[in-house]
Amino acid sequence: MNNDFPIGVFDSGVGGLSVLKHLVRIMPNERYIYLGDTARVPYGNKSPETVQQYSQQCAQFLLSHQVKVVIIACNTASAVALEAVRQISPVPVIGVIQPSAEAALRATKNGTIGIIGTRATVGSNAYAHEIQTLTTTEHINVVGQACPLFVPLAEEGWIAHPATRAIAEEYMKPLKAENVDTLVLGCTHYPLLTETLQLAMPGVTLIDPGEHAAEVTRRVLTTKHALAHTQEIPSTRIDYYVTDIPATFPQVAKQFLGFDVPMPLLVSIEQLGRL
Amino acid sequence: MNNDFPIGVFDSGVGGLSVLKHLVRIMPNERYIYLGDTARVPYGNKSPETVQQYSQQCAQFLLSHQVKVVIIACNTASAVALEAVRQISPVPVIGVIQPSAEAALRATKNGTIGIIGTRATVGSNAYAHEIQTLTTTEHINVVGQACPLFVPLAEEGWIAHPATRAIAEEYMKPLKAENVDTLVLGCTHYPLLTETLQLAMPGVTLIDPGEHAAEVTRRVLTTKHALAHTQEIPSTRIDYYVTDIPATFPQVAKQFLGFDVPMPLLVSIEQLGRL
Repeated sequence: MNNDFPIGVFDSGVGGLSVLKHLVRIMPNERYIYLGDTARVPYGNKSPETVQQYSQQCAQFLLSHQVKVVIIACNTASAVALEAVRQISPVPVIGVIQPSAEAALRATKNGTIGIIGTRATVGSNAYAHEIQTLTTTEHINVVGQACPLFVPLAEEGWIAHPATRAIAEEYMKPLKAENVDTLVLGCTHYPLLTETLQLAMPGVTLIDPGEHAAEVTRRVLTTKHALAHTQEIPSTRIDYYVTDIPATFPQVAKQFLGFDVPMPLLVSIEQLGRL
Repeated sequence: MNNDFPIGVFDSGVGGLSVLKHLVRIMPNERYIYLGDTARVPYGNKSPETVQQYSQQCAQFLLSHQVKVVIIACNTASAVALEAVRQISPVPVIGVIQPSAEAALRATKNGTIGIIGTRATVGSNAYAHEIQTLTTTEHINVVGQACPLFVPLAEEGWIAHPATRAIAEEYMKPLKAENVDTLVLGCTHYPLLTETLQLAMPGVTLIDPGEHAAEVTRRVLTTKHALAHTQEIPSTRIDYYVTDIPATFPQVAKQFLGFDVPMPLLVSIEQLGRL
């Protein structure tokens, strides 16, 4: 593994930029390659087999660019395709589930953790499984809630709209009823709704998977002595690839990253399929 | 063209079943082949080139089953890919735009027509263009409004939820301000929200594209003497194909069609790509 090799990040679309944001923040001297599978977004309503196939293709694309680590930014892909990607990858593969499960376990006081995400993520029980694997001594209650409307609300920019508040209140009801004290935002878009979610769940600790996946990535690269060499001036370089170019990419990307991004490069899904 | 050949219908997903419903209702003696490109749904946020390519692949699949007519149930595909599909089809290709444009022109009294749909459909101005083409003598004001939240709300089953009402009120504001008296439900999912939309737009005539596309299809087949032979007992037969099998298919399909459907057959997008 070469220290100068880039960090690869893929996602079903643009949402994974919320994970990239944290990577860039804590490792500003790295090169990054981001691939958003925008031609086939969303993964959340597709079958596990399909998500596994798409995820392997995305990872293969990153590997063909000599990445030193593959980060699966998409919760759905992390939930159902982590092993499938590990099978084809000679470099470490980091999903967003395990880092968030660890963070949620550290944060909870009453042992009741809520997970919100797509139907596929919640239905996979991947978070519950990971949490139970990580804790053998104590009983942890994991409550899942699919929130399919949050992604379109976030993409519509209705971050704090009354309708968004009403929908958040409705989705949060079962989680409140179970008295969760920690809530994993198990979908890349949900951090955009942090304010509304915190209002709906006062006093509850919100876990942003991107933050913790970035920490784990730094830990893995540090252990392998594979971090980029420190430079006095941050020298972040990011190459953006997508499988379809949505006209709204620059605006949506900026919303997630907080800084301006160039138009991405196009890689067709036929190219991905041939890798 | 053989009278016994099936009618082919394709859509980006399951929404096109709202069009199939009307076809079956008015032509109950036909065979139908329905293809939902569920592995790549939605088309509404993809580029025109991508939608054209996917649409040609879907049409090719139907043509390989010897359909006597191809119906593009998806508004986005009808808006940006009708000509692309016609280029490869030896049989008539019917989209949902022109039939609804004709119906809207017949319905409007004050000459102000609203179009709601995906960003791609509304952004294409296909309805406005079609309406202006059909009417050379009078001035028609066409007002478009993208409503990206309606599809997830419909799929969530929140047909008459207070949040759906609030969102509908918000989306309808610009259309009300323009005093539209006729509203085209320019997305296959929207007919599910008819009640909520009618409440938000009292007195306005709602146009369901599926109804009018079905009428045009019957007209075309009648002209070509290609309708299935009448039978005393309706003998509808429908073969369902999808590019990915969503676990919720039977429930969602029933919501659109109003009757029970079997699990669909799977055709991979690799197979589609090879046609």
